[in-house]
Amino acid sequence: MTKSYHVAVVGATGAVGTQMIELLEEAATFKIKQVSFLSSIRSAGKKLAFRGEEVIIQEATPESFEGVDIALFSAGGSVSKALAKEAVKRGAIVIDNTSAYRMDPTVPLVVPEVNEKALFSHNGIIANPNCSTIQMVAALEPIREAFGLNRIIVSTYQAVSGSGVSAIQELKDGSRAVLDNKEFTPQIMPVKGDKKHYPIAFNALPQIDVFTENDYTYEEMKMINETKKIMEDNTIKVSATCVRIPVVSGHSESVYIEVDKDGVSAKDIQNALKNAPGVVLEDDPANQVYPQAVSAAGKKEVFVGRIRADIDDSKGFHMWIVSDNLLKGAAWNSIQIAESLVKLAII
Amino acid sequence: MTKSYHVAVVGATGAVGTQMIELLEEAATFKIKQVSFLSSIRSAGKKLAFRGEEVIIQEATPESFEGVDIALFSAGGSVSKALAKEAVKRGAIVIDNTSAYRMDPTVPLVVPEVNEKALFSHNGIIANPNCSTIQMVAALEPIREAFGLNRIIVSTYQAVSGSGVSAIQELKDGSRAVLDNKEFTPQIMPVKGDKKHYPIAFNALPQIDVFTENDYTYEEMKMINETKKIMEDNTIKVSATCVRIPVVSGHSESVYIEVDKDGVSAKDIQNALKNAPGVVLEDDPANQVYPQAVSAAGKKEVFVGRIRADIDDSKGFHMWIVSDNLLKGAAWNSIQIAESLVKLAII
Repeated sequence: MTKSYHVAVVGATGAVGTQMIELLEEAATFKIKQVSFLSSIRSAGKKLAFRGEEVIIQEATPESFEGVDIALFSAGGSVSKALAKEAVKRGAIVIDNTSAYRMDPTVPLVVPEVNEKALFSHNGIIANPNCSTIQMVAALEPIREAFGLNRIIVSTYQAVSGSGVSAIQELKDGSRAVLDNKEFTPQIMPVKGDKKHYPIAFNALPQIDVFTENDYTYEEMKMINETKKIMEDNTIKVSATCVRIPVVSGHSESVYIEVDKDGVSAKDIQNALKNAPGVVLEDDPANQVYPQAVSAAGKKEVFVGRIRADIDDSKGFHMWIVSDNLLKGAAWNSIQIAESLVKLAII
Repeated sequence: MTKSYHVAVVGATGAVGTQMIELLEEAATFKIKQVSFLSSIRSAGKKLAFRGEEVIIQEATPESFEGVDIALFSAGGSVSKALAKEAVKRGAIVIDNTSAYRMDPTVPLVVPEVNEKALFSHNGIIANPNCSTIQMVAALEPIREAFGLNRIIVSTYQAVSGSGVSAIQELKDGSRAVLDNKEFTPQIMPVKGDKKHYPIAFNALPQIDVFTENDYTYEEMKMINETKKIMEDNTIKVSATCVRIPVVSGHSESVYIEVDKDGVSAKDIQNALKNAPGVVLEDDPANQVYPQAVSAAGKKEVFVGRIRADIDDSKGFHMWIVSDNLLKGAAWNSIQIAESLVKLAII
């Protein structure tokens, strides 16, 4: 008999939590016997529909995880720090979409297309990588497997939905204010709770998350460190510049790579991606075919195009990688991890 | 007695022409005895104010340039091809803001802060570089002078105003349609007259200008070739990915460079830029100070920030370069060339 699972979603009313519930309802391949939708006390008591039935949102407490098999966390790092181990203690496997445990050496950081096998070494918690990292490594792993990978330089064009529902609203309100020639005072972007706020409407902000001591932002350091951990290779050179642009959903990335192997062509790179899992090649410049944030939004795949050889370095290639940051970049990757746990009989 | 000049503006009603006229009126340091505002027959007859007097726009013909000393062209490549040599024949020096003559080896391609002396070798036509190139070389030249420059990898975040007045309108109309949940069919972006058109509102388009045979766009090849020509060094490795984003004015650029010299620090790079002509250092991450498109709009300088050492390559540095693409990227650089011609007594 097929096993069936009790799944909890922590942060059920957030931008990512909402997507998780939708994917559990429509896309997940494992059997679900029960769901628990958990949140802060503020949203507790609200009702959500799930497969035709009403589910009352409950406040997330240690006891909420009694009987839960899979707990999907996406309610901020502090909630994960407070409750993930409580869930594990009660027998759940936690799939954590915050940055709380990503760099913990005892916690696997997983993109199923890249390092599914790392799941076997879990100790109860599995971390879901940062959105901008996931789409990049999903697109680059098939290239790395075929030709080796020596270096990555990425500049991102990130959507505001990564900052949550209120950031989307600020982009919309700020855009309308500019169009109507009205005043608008930003209060969220680039980083909720940081000292200064700047307009994201009709602007580009080279700051995502706060700055670290080396003048990179945390977002940039996440891309650098997580890529090495997921690819299980600390020798890959990775550098990142992370930029927020006025897009609602869909992160785009301009990526330069250097492969190890000699004599690789742009065509070889395209062929490596053509049948890669979770990757869609959209690369036909003659017909103006290339990935775009608006066309990737709502889709689960990672889209790659504009693949071309560097003019000066025979091992260098440029490309344009786009994916829905709330789906493959967050909710969908978490559900995929759950599917992998079931498929590999880890749970 | 100070010389005084008859200045013609070709393309007087365009996005750049309008800025040129404003700068001639308010900022130019040379004396102007007469202006001619020229356009296609469509705008001929319209009136523009200049220093309190009415100037009637005239159709640009070969005869329009009789008596003209300085002719500023910004009406598209075909107009420059048709009329620039006619102007030179009649004694004018042409400063051409189109791509028509930029790579002509007999035509100097000039950013005054970088290669003003190239003006001495002019044969009547001087080319104004592409907007995205100008701001990059203005920021990188002081670094190159101090430490040498081996490599540039740039990803751009370009404003729509580079595509003209109708593109700005399309961004505004498209944005409002999205906010109002209405249908909108783009007809201009990414490239006027190309086969397909895509929304620029809340999107990022990795295509500026049409594609060339090597799958780079013309815009990307302009940045690559023009940088080498302006810096008078064909050995510098340059690669570019050019992307249009929903910003009205102000191009931003994520730039990675490798210097020649050993032991250079991010602080050294900052110091090289601190007093560089036309460059403003805005680089204080602890206080969230970095260049932004919306704050650079309307200003003549090139703004540089987010300067930091690459983590893996001791000669590598990252930075964020922003400037108003219609001013330093076009109109202001043209006026500066005219000022240099006067200052160097070439005219």
